[in-house]
Amino acid sequence: MYTAEDEKFMRLAIELAESNVKQMTGGPFGAIIVKDGQIISASANQVIKSNDPTAHAEIAAIRLACENLGTIDLQGCTIYSSCEPCPMCLGAIYWARIGTLYFGNTKADAAAAGFDDDHIYQEMAKPAAARSLKRIQILADEAAIAFKLWQGSDSKFDY
Amino acid sequence: MYTAEDEKFMRLAIELAESNVKQMTGGPFGAIIVKDGQIISASANQVIKSNDPTAHAEIAAIRLACENLGTIDLQGCTIYSSCEPCPMCLGAIYWARIGTLYFGNTKADAAAAGFDDDHIYQEMAKPAAARSLKRIQILADEAAIAFKLWQGSDSKFDY
Repeated sequence: MYTAEDEKFMRLAIELAESNVKQMTGGPFGAIIVKDGQIISASANQVIKSNDPTAHAEIAAIRLACENLGTIDLQGCTIYSSCEPCPMCLGAIYWARIGTLYFGNTKADAAAAGFDDDHIYQEMAKPAAARSLKRIQILADEAAIAFKLWQGSDSKFDY
Repeated sequence: MYTAEDEKFMRLAIELAESNVKQMTGGPFGAIIVKDGQIISASANQVIKSNDPTAHAEIAAIRLACENLGTIDLQGCTIYSSCEPCPMCLGAIYWARIGTLYFGNTKADAAAAGFDDDHIYQEMAKPAAARSLKRIQILADEAAIAFKLWQGSDSKFDY
């Protein structure tokens, strides 16, 4: 179920996606973050413009929403994304504690349009050793010291 | 298998993680990106310092590496992370086309130290409808227009 207001916010996300293509500034993706009926942030995909492969619409909108609200905790916020988020953006949505996602296109639509989301979803579903990303654990004992420092420090309460 | 040089790079990543805690600037995580034996970028976790829940060490190091190399394609690069990446960062590593990952702590170590990575990995392994993130598809027909524009445009070749 969704309301006319949800449609209004999604149309804004779609508009950002379309204008990104028309102006040749980036991929066909837009995202809007809303809290209590108010738009907190809005961003199109900025991968090309920012020369940053992590600057997907959702990541850019989350960063901007945190800046605008002065917090890293977006609990109570809703994200409207013109496309179902890729694994990177889905992870970011969880870290930011956004509770609700509205999306237009699916990851299958994205794959059909030439985007790699589905490949990454498939990779992440495999056991780590079966992934194309080569991975090697080293210096586990030394790395553990940073976690011990953290657990004994006051700064962890601020995280 | 790994070399003394791999250990050297991992120790730098671990040092960034430790100094982040000692200086109370962020979580106990550091990452180094290397190409052809040269360090391209280095970053600790900057979540607190930047008020940005996406500013994990790996994301920050990828952004900086892209800036330093002037490309969004980090093929041929290796990432040394003091901890096994969370799903968001793993997604970013795939988008950036980094081929090799060295890590110190595991995601289980991170969970034991109070970080949410494991919860997010579990969420992402579930069918979308079973996840805690509420999701609703709307306006699929309208959203599809952005993808059609993209497929008919020249800008897609620059992505």
